[in-house]
Amino acid sequence: VSLIEEIREQPAAVLRLLDSQREHVGRIGAALAVRDPLLIVVAARGSSDHAAIYAQYVFGALHRLPVALATPALTSLYGVAPRMERAVVVGISQSGQSPDVVGVLEAARGQGAPTVAITNAPASELASAAEHVIDIGAGPERATAATKTYTSSLVAVAMLADALAVGRRDALGGDDAGRSAALDAVPTAMETALASEPSVESVARAWASQDNCIVLGRGFEYATAREWALKLKELAQVAADPYSAADFQHGPLALVEPGYPILAVAPSGVPNASMRVLLHRLRGDYHVDLVVISDDPGTRDLGTASLELPGGTAEWTQPVVSILPAQLFAYHVTAARGLDTESPRWISKVTLTR
Amino acid sequence: VSLIEEIREQPAAVLRLLDSQREHVGRIGAALAVRDPLLIVVAARGSSDHAAIYAQYVFGALHRLPVALATPALTSLYGVAPRMERAVVVGISQSGQSPDVVGVLEAARGQGAPTVAITNAPASELASAAEHVIDIGAGPERATAATKTYTSSLVAVAMLADALAVGRRDALGGDDAGRSAALDAVPTAMETALASEPSVESVARAWASQDNCIVLGRGFEYATAREWALKLKELAQVAADPYSAADFQHGPLALVEPGYPILAVAPSGVPNASMRVLLHRLRGDYHVDLVVISDDPGTRDLGTASLELPGGTAEWTQPVVSILPAQLFAYHVTAARGLDTESPRWISKVTLTR
Repeated sequence: VSLIEEIREQPAAVLRLLDSQREHVGRIGAALAVRDPLLIVVAARGSSDHAAIYAQYVFGALHRLPVALATPALTSLYGVAPRMERAVVVGISQSGQSPDVVGVLEAARGQGAPTVAITNAPASELASAAEHVIDIGAGPERATAATKTYTSSLVAVAMLADALAVGRRDALGGDDAGRSAALDAVPTAMETALASEPSVESVARAWASQDNCIVLGRGFEYATAREWALKLKELAQVAADPYSAADFQHGPLALVEPGYPILAVAPSGVPNASMRVLLHRLRGDYHVDLVVISDDPGTRDLGTASLELPGGTAEWTQPVVSILPAQLFAYHVTAARGLDTESPRWISKVTLTR
Repeated sequence: VSLIEEIREQPAAVLRLLDSQREHVGRIGAALAVRDPLLIVVAARGSSDHAAIYAQYVFGALHRLPVALATPALTSLYGVAPRMERAVVVGISQSGQSPDVVGVLEAARGQGAPTVAITNAPASELASAAEHVIDIGAGPERATAATKTYTSSLVAVAMLADALAVGRRDALGGDDAGRSAALDAVPTAMETALASEPSVESVARAWASQDNCIVLGRGFEYATAREWALKLKELAQVAADPYSAADFQHGPLALVEPGYPILAVAPSGVPNASMRVLLHRLRGDYHVDLVVISDDPGTRDLGTASLELPGGTAEWTQPVVSILPAQLFAYHVTAARGLDTESPRWISKVTLTR
């Protein structure tokens, strides 16, 4: 099994997760709802940290819950665990081995806070430390770069947020049936997104001589921008710097000059209008080289080149689909640069940071 | 007044803030303590967002409080404000004009949550929106790049965290007298740090041909790594990518090769031992070009070059001092590259993101 096969396996992995874990996650959601949490604390590292950023938007948007991304160093280095009363504490780690993520969950459980592990390793330390476990069941991931464990972790977060809302309208106005339909539509949208691989490959080959770039996203898609940049760094050795479109204008814009490579994830949805204004300015006034991921033809037209998404995905589940052309792009840039797609130099699959 | 003068004004600005606002902030702390908050929500953008990251560590370390960095886009774009009952909500903006930061504070106040504005503009919208205002009183900042408003915002955060702990031991074991002494020692340490400018200038001149780099920090100094990277981007047009030392090993390490420029902030303190292991490996195994900021001679010796800090600063106030050689470094790299230190291209002092 190679990286490209793992990328292509993702719709099947997500379908399996939705089919096999929906009831189990439903029970977890019911157990958490009884506790009437006032906040979510998420502990994660690496790609899982981008799933945590997604969680920040999903729990914020559907539940109006503030989400604190844990600073595991405070627990592991300073021995100071946060007070987590009234919090639901979620640890995300595909390997379940990250000692500092495990440390946060152990501290939370010691305080009596409900804990959830999202992991591909249901027999791991992280799973043992948690009261509730969502086994993403993505199967062994052999390539060093996380792909199917990333999208499956996003889906687990989305399922958990849905389960916590069961029986009432969420803050975006959706109901049980609407959210279920949104989740059920994801695997097919993923298949369609992957079908654009030949066109992604040709854009990637033309782009592959770039050594650095800026990656933009906003709202739910900020997580996608972060994850796209990480894949480009670890696989393709491209120094890719991710920004929310708002923060980008506070300083990093100074880097831009004609031909500067910018990548943007800008699907339909609430931030699309402001993203279009920014991308239009970047092309028209700054003459950047712009690759855009979008389902919207007008937004794609703003790019020097573009990667296509299928339309009709609910905004809160969109990042599960949006990352696919980004993964394919990073894969084909890596291949075009003659680099190792399976085992990037220096890094390990499991990093035991404390 | 020019950027370099504003950099040099910082010890005086901080001394003034400590002298003039200590009692006022003490009263705010007492008012907040009565509410027994379970979390802190911070809203900020740009450099102020790095003050928010500092707040995450300070309130976590001294108070065991989880800190959620607000996602202002949820409020401003999606109209979904987080539930902020049991939260203290802090907005940080030197201009006090950022509409999305103002939006979070207005929503919090509407919910009855206590709100604090940290700003250099006490007549601003942000100040009007907040129940409590800490006027950092740094005086007009004319250069586009934030320097004195950044360090003064950090000090305001530190004063607020101290005030909230008055009368009891904090989670790091400190008492009122110890925390007061730590704050009082900051201006002199800042003076000493600035006195190393000639040596910083010569390191910066030798380094100035770099176009990209990685910036590392950990724990409290993660905020410094982020702010150092932002100054290098906006002023010197160096694509500087900041990481916590832990996250760096999850992927971005793949970018590194012999001669790759890495900057690290690694003062004495709890994370120093693990930072030294990483820096030793980066020099010995990967042969990177390494510039280290530290008060510890053994840590400085790990660098190809180093920038000196005075010793004896309490770890929780260290970022106020650690950023100074970083600012001087960015300033002198910018000057050596022949770029405009006062008005970097494209960006405005005040960015009205929504």
